[in-house]
Formats: sequence, structure tokens, C-alpha cells
Amino acid sequence: MQLITVGTVAFDRIETPFGIAEKTVGGAATYISLAASVFLEKIGLVSVVGDDFPEPVMQMLRDRGVDLAGLEVLKGKESFFWAGRYHYDMNSRDTLETRLNVLLELDPKLPEAYRAAPYVMLGNLDPAVQAKVLDQMDPRPAMVVLDTMNFWMDSAMPELREVIARVDILTINDAEARQLSGEHSLVKGAAKILAMGPRYLVVKKGEHGALLFGENRVFFAPALPLEDVVDPTGAGDTFAGGFIGYLARTKDHSFDNLKRAIIVGSALASFTCEKFGIDRLVEITREDIDTRIQQFVDLVDFDIELVEG
Amino acid sequence: MQLITVGTVAFDRIETPFGIAEKTVGGAATYISLAASVFLEKIGLVSVVGDDFPEPVMQMLRDRGVDLAGLEVLKGKESFFWAGRYHYDMNSRDTLETRLNVLLELDPKLPEAYRAAPYVMLGNLDPAVQAKVLDQMDPRPAMVVLDTMNFWMDSAMPELREVIARVDILTINDAEARQLSGEHSLVKGAAKILAMGPRYLVVKKGEHGALLFGENRVFFAPALPLEDVVDPTGAGDTFAGGFIGYLARTKDHSFDNLKRAIIVGSALASFTCEKFGIDRLVEITREDIDTRIQQFVDLVDFDIELVEG
Repeated sequence: MQLITVGTVAFDRIETPFGIAEKTVGGAATYISLAASVFLEKIGLVSVVGDDFPEPVMQMLRDRGVDLAGLEVLKGKESFFWAGRYHYDMNSRDTLETRLNVLLELDPKLPEAYRAAPYVMLGNLDPAVQAKVLDQMDPRPAMVVLDTMNFWMDSAMPELREVIARVDILTINDAEARQLSGEHSLVKGAAKILAMGPRYLVVKKGEHGALLFGENRVFFAPALPLEDVVDPTGAGDTFAGGFIGYLARTKDHSFDNLKRAIIVGSALASFTCEKFGIDRLVEITREDIDTRIQQFVDLVDFDIELVEG
Repeated sequence: MQLITVGTVAFDRIETPFGIAEKTVGGAATYISLAASVFLEKIGLVSVVGDDFPEPVMQMLRDRGVDLAGLEVLKGKESFFWAGRYHYDMNSRDTLETRLNVLLELDPKLPEAYRAAPYVMLGNLDPAVQAKVLDQMDPRPAMVVLDTMNFWMDSAMPELREVIARVDILTINDAEARQLSGEHSLVKGAAKILAMGPRYLVVKKGEHGALLFGENRVFFAPALPLEDVVDPTGAGDTFAGGFIGYLARTKDHSFDNLKRAIIVGSALASFTCEKFGIDRLVEITREDIDTRIQQFVDLVDFDIELVEG
């Protein structure tokens, strides 16, 4: 395996000011694997679903190189379900309902073939579960990226801090970076978070782009202004999957290549926003991706010479 | 004159979660002129103050090439006063008090030497007053930039639409772009706003940067992540002043040069946030500015080659 990911595989009900998706396939590990599959042939997925989860979706994942030996299917049980409603700004949302269902029984046991994978993406989950996945990796992977959210900061900070100390890169949003560090300034907050263990911090700001901190440097990648944002669900996970997929493909961990990985992740995430659920992500071509990356290049490109005073 | 600006010259009372400035010099035209004075030697300022406005500040402006023949001083009256309180995120604020005072009597009469200036920056004011300034320009200036806010959209939309139709570049924030266009998507909103008259639209997003729309192109400039944001008051006006000051200096209206002007404006605005009021803006050197512009270059610089599928 080139990459192992753990996270939810789920059903979502999504309301936006512009439409509703009653029951669409979602989950962090779903988006992460799909995005990473753009760059990789062998991805191991660790998660759990009920037997209500559609076989055609599992086959589609397999067809894209996502190995499902690590996906437990529990007979007679229902898959994780999340329902949310986006505000008019489409950058914030309320959770309307969470049915954990099979997620309560997620006790990851990694297939033998997964344990030596060089790249690991720990999708947003109970930090204890994220740690269990790391425990089973041998040797220690070349790169581990962890995504989490405010829910775990509120409810399981000690466990979260423990697992954060073990990873290379942490991805959270700007409010979470402020919460985790206790600093309003993202610059000061990033310094505190990097002192907790990770070598790099990625701050995801949704429609406002993303920041990469590390090596006493900072890089900013914008989000592409889109004609229509239909549904941002999964954009953060798509970003993470594209980010680590690109790194696992290029095997280059320099700051310059991390910057490229951020751009690639941002480009893939922009597609996810264009339709409900995974609908857009599964239909894009390599050419679509190249065109979009070029749009990112154009979006921020400038040259400047200073004028004399 | 190289540039004429109209806007408030005022006192502010500013509360942030991190400090209070009881009575500090502010006002749109103050920030605009100071920022533009980095690039220009002859700026005409059109505004009104009471005789409470400090002569040393007026002399400081004159020393920087800001002509005050257009600044009316009303005897026995008080200058415009604004008090505001910033939220914890420092990106939004509440107005606590507005005393219009002399602003009620602002009826701009441009000195003869101002009328043929090639660049005009219409700072946020009653659109009827902005229009009066434009009426007195002869010949029509090479470039007119207009800044406004939601207050005028709520209270004087017809007058605002009239003056917007007469300018080259409109600068507003993202919420205002959505309000003015009735579109959630900034891409669609920008198209509608450009159809109202201006050739370019600058969407200011505070700590999230700025977007430039026009010529069917889009450019994004980030805001610099700062160690400490002390007071964002005047950042938007500083941006506008740096933007038009750079354009008036270089006399190049190409899209590529507009991009540079956005970066220069963003760099100057970042200084304004570092101290209360104009305190930081008046102390920076040419070297400080060059260093900061280089930080912007580094912040978004990346090179990417696509990997094969």
C-alpha cells in the first residue's frame, strides 16, 4: 500500500440555501481515498459500515485502487449518518443530526498489507481511534497527516494532544487553530501548535484558502472563486486526500513540494464544492484537474519591481 | 495635483479585545492620503474638520505632500467622531457611536488646482458628495476609484448606483459585493457589478485578502498573517490609498499593474493593523515597505509541474 487512511464512510443528508441532498454517500475516508486515488494506485481504507452501504460505491472505490480489506461491514447494522444545514455564506454550518450507528464499534485492525505503508492520513475521528491506527504501523510511516475538529478539542483534549504529538502534519481550520493554541494571532498560534509536535500546520479557511506553517516559513494558497458553490461537504477531506496523495506520489517532503501539495489539494477540493457529495469528484478527468491547477497559478501570479521613492 | 481624495478626516475611539484608543486621529481621507503619499508628492485632500482638529497632524500631512487647500476648517465646530468595538476575531466590529458634527456641512468645493488631477479616490461618504467631487473634475480624470459601504446601499442605493456607474474601479467588501449584486457567488456577483459601470471590482476581505475582477480575469492577493493585529481601523482606506497611489505613480492601467497595486495596497494595509490609528503608518520607512512586499511575494510563490497520471 502507498497510503493508508482511516475515517468515516457514511451517509449524509445535506441542506444548503440552494438545495437538499436527502441521502448521499459521504464520510472523511471516502473523500480522502477518492482524492488520493488521482495520484495513487494502492490505497488502504480503514473504516466500518453497515450492510446498508451500497456495493456499487464500494466497487467504484476498488476500481480506483482503494483496497477495502480494512473496511469492516457489520451485518444488520446501519452506517454512520450525518445531517447538516449550511448557512447562507456556505462557509459555516449547523449539525442537525448525528447517528453514530456502526461508528461506535470502530476498533481498527489493520490488515497485514497495510502496516508498512509509508503514508498515513488520519481522518477526523476519535483521537483514540486515530492513535490505534498509528500503533499498528510498522515501521513508523514516512509521513503521517492528522485531521481533527473542535468537537475533539472540547471532549478529548488530552487524547488529542497525545496523538497530535505523534504526527508530521496537522490540518485544522482557523477557529480550531485559535482554540487549540489559545492565541488569536494565527502566526503565534501556529508557533505554539508546532511546539506540540507536528513539523507542519495546515490551517484550512474554506472559501478563504489555506495557510501552511513550518520551518519558520508560511505559505498561503487561495481557494478558487467558483461560479457556484453547491455543497462544501467533504471539501476539507478532499483537500487532505489530494494533499497527501500528491506527497505520496512525489515522495518529496520539501517545503516547496508541500506548497505544491496544498495547491493540488485546493484544486481537488474546489471540484467537490461544485456538486452534492462525491458526485463531482468521481467524474473529473485528469484534464479537468490540470486546467484547474493552471487557474490557481493564474489566480495568484504577479511580478513586482519596486518603484523608487 | 497627481491625486485628489475626498473622505472623512476625523477622530476615532477604538476598542479591541486587546486595548482601547480613547481619541485617535482617523478618517478615510487621512489614511488614503498618508498611504498614497508613499508614492506621490502632490495630493489634494477634500474634506471638512472642526477647529478641534490638531494643527500638528495637518502639518504632518502637508510635510508629506498632502495639500490641504481643499480641507475646510469650521470655526467653533467639532470634527467627525466615530467609536467602534472589534469582536474577538478582529475581522468584524460594531459601531458604538457616530457624531457627524461638521460632516453634515461637507459641501465640497474643489480648489482650481485640484480640478485637472488625473487620479481621484472617492473615499466612503454619502454618494451625493462623491458625485459632487466628480462633477467638478475637468477633464474627466484618467482613473476614478470609489469606496463605499453597506450603509449607503441600505439608505441611498439610487444615488450610489448613479455614482458607481461613473467610476473605473469599485472597492467594497465581500458581504457588500453580495448585497450590491444580490448574488451569493462572488464570481457571479462581480459580473453583475461590472455590468453597472466600473471596469474593475476589488473585493476586500480583510484578514482573508482581496480579489480583483475585470477583463474576464480574476486575481487574488492574500493578507499577510501578522504576529499581532492591534487595530484594523483604516486598513481598507490604507489599502485604497496605496492602490491608487501606486497607479498614479506608475501611470500603467494594465491588469498586471493593477495586480501590483493590489499587492502594494495590501502591504501598506498590513502596517496600519500593527498599531492604533495612523501610528504605524506614519513611522514606516521605504525599506519597511520593500521588505513587506517581498514577504507577499514569498507568501504565495510556488511552482508546479503536473505529475503524470
